[in-house]
Amino acid sequence: MDVGYRVAVVGATGAVGQQMLKFLEEREFPVREIIPLSSARSAGNQITFMGKQVEIQEAKPESFTGVDIALFSAGGNISKQLAPEAVKRGAVVIDNTSAYRMDTNVPLVVPEVNPDAIRRHNGIIANPNCSTIQMVAALKPLVDKYGLERIIVSTYQAVSGAGMEAMQELEAQSEAWVRGDDVQAQYLPVGKAEKHYQMAFNVIPQVDMGQENNFTFEEMKMIQETKKILEDESIRVAATCVRVPVMRGHSESVYVELKSDYDLAEVRSLLHQTDGIIVQDNIIEQEYPMPLDATDRTEVFVGRLRRDLDYPRGLHLWVVSDNLLKGAATNSIQIAETLVSQGL
Amino acid sequence: MDVGYRVAVVGATGAVGQQMLKFLEEREFPVREIIPLSSARSAGNQITFMGKQVEIQEAKPESFTGVDIALFSAGGNISKQLAPEAVKRGAVVIDNTSAYRMDTNVPLVVPEVNPDAIRRHNGIIANPNCSTIQMVAALKPLVDKYGLERIIVSTYQAVSGAGMEAMQELEAQSEAWVRGDDVQAQYLPVGKAEKHYQMAFNVIPQVDMGQENNFTFEEMKMIQETKKILEDESIRVAATCVRVPVMRGHSESVYVELKSDYDLAEVRSLLHQTDGIIVQDNIIEQEYPMPLDATDRTEVFVGRLRRDLDYPRGLHLWVVSDNLLKGAATNSIQIAETLVSQGL
Repeated sequence: MDVGYRVAVVGATGAVGQQMLKFLEEREFPVREIIPLSSARSAGNQITFMGKQVEIQEAKPESFTGVDIALFSAGGNISKQLAPEAVKRGAVVIDNTSAYRMDTNVPLVVPEVNPDAIRRHNGIIANPNCSTIQMVAALKPLVDKYGLERIIVSTYQAVSGAGMEAMQELEAQSEAWVRGDDVQAQYLPVGKAEKHYQMAFNVIPQVDMGQENNFTFEEMKMIQETKKILEDESIRVAATCVRVPVMRGHSESVYVELKSDYDLAEVRSLLHQTDGIIVQDNIIEQEYPMPLDATDRTEVFVGRLRRDLDYPRGLHLWVVSDNLLKGAATNSIQIAETLVSQGL
Repeated sequence: MDVGYRVAVVGATGAVGQQMLKFLEEREFPVREIIPLSSARSAGNQITFMGKQVEIQEAKPESFTGVDIALFSAGGNISKQLAPEAVKRGAVVIDNTSAYRMDTNVPLVVPEVNPDAIRRHNGIIANPNCSTIQMVAALKPLVDKYGLERIIVSTYQAVSGAGMEAMQELEAQSEAWVRGDDVQAQYLPVGKAEKHYQMAFNVIPQVDMGQENNFTFEEMKMIQETKKILEDESIRVAATCVRVPVMRGHSESVYVELKSDYDLAEVRSLLHQTDGIIVQDNIIEQEYPMPLDATDRTEVFVGRLRRDLDYPRGLHLWVVSDNLLKGAATNSIQIAETLVSQGL
């Protein structure tokens, strides 16, 4: 059978990689052959794809021979090493790490926001940071209608954004807490960082490493990626990124200042009409997005819409989405779908 | 022995009431007689105060005969009913509910921010909302030095702010989750509200009841109380209040715009020199405030200090404090101490 594409998934055993494989199946992406790749440690294990057992191979430069589309989600270093090797062998890389996001030569894409950027690719297309994706997806209809001057965002990020080890750690800590045992902290907030803090029943105002300018790398990703995706360097963006004891689903308290006057009912209606966005917005009736409800859902949920009391063009929103799906796997597969519809 | 005051604690069995009794002992407040009061349900139980067993009585108007200072923390309705009765009988009421906070006749006090307001009392002094107290305490040195134009705050509030039932619910939910049982939600986010949602491993963007203007009552408290305490109606304040699965300690992502230019090192040093504030601010070294570290501490912890990247007079802060202590019991006792030092 010659229809379809040879698709490699790098990081096939990871939290996001597993979701990618699931979506390729569920969304009936035209896969002729699936090539699950991983580190040497996980190679040799089997995955089931479309009812067939497929062996996971160690990711090497030659793994990409004959590959059409390579989905990377195995950390920035792997992408830096192997993405150029995949491109050299003719694959288009969709990279879900921070390795190439700010590379001027690489489009950074949320398909419902800037699909046309895909056409400018030179072999690599970057998937934005999870926190950025859900925010720009929610803001895009407002950007188009009213223009956007400024964003101030504080995040409530799930531990799955830091990978499976982080999920296992929150689970283990919660179990220890319930049993009355000592709670061990060996991974969060950042696996490679020097200090680790208890996540269960705590809030940690650090996602990714700290920088000399007192922001974290995660905060700088949200600031820089938003400007790149919206193709507007004049938008003022400020971010405070915080980890909370939630397994899946990032929440964001977003304040924006629009360029022109808006009507709140119209904002609600605009968002309601947008594919991929679900509005849950009635505080009197206690309707608003929450990460538990967003888990395993591919949409971006928006609520707590309200006009700032002092600044009429100021708008507050609460945005929630499953960081492993729209924030990662779903968006990557949507990029692949758009790429295919554009003829690679 | 005639030295000291007759002190009533209304809500003596509650989360905050218990801390009030503890602080009266620890801080050696001049108590001649302690009168623990509660609902009929808890009356008859004993507390230990200064090594003596004291029986809890049901709070009634006549309970306040001969009382000098009455500390109320048993909900707004009890305060509305009984605080005037206490005042009528000659007591000064320090009220830790929202009942009188916005009453123009009632001073709203954080002792290190506006101690002089106490002198204007007419029998009742209000203790601000926990989220407001820690924020204005952290901002006061900056208000004095640079002036303050604007605050945008997103909170990460512990369940103890909703009382002991809320703490018990988060504990029970966490245990059920670990055991793999169904998780029951019967209290949070707001006991008296119609709908209840799981708090464990979730984030709920509702603290207190929703209002017609799409804000919650908690958000309006932060907005209005901040202006009243800082005695400046021109300060623009916006708040998004969110409950997180933390037992004790509210965290706040605060963005402020100051009236004049500031030096970041000077801000750090000003905060460092302020009594009751502890600066933990080095993201490279992973030093920042967290609610687990702030539990059982009376100070306000400040970190993640950084200049906004677009607006030079914009400053981001991360403020954490134990909501049962500085946010409630500690502040009430500090008001009582200031009152006594001013001669009632």
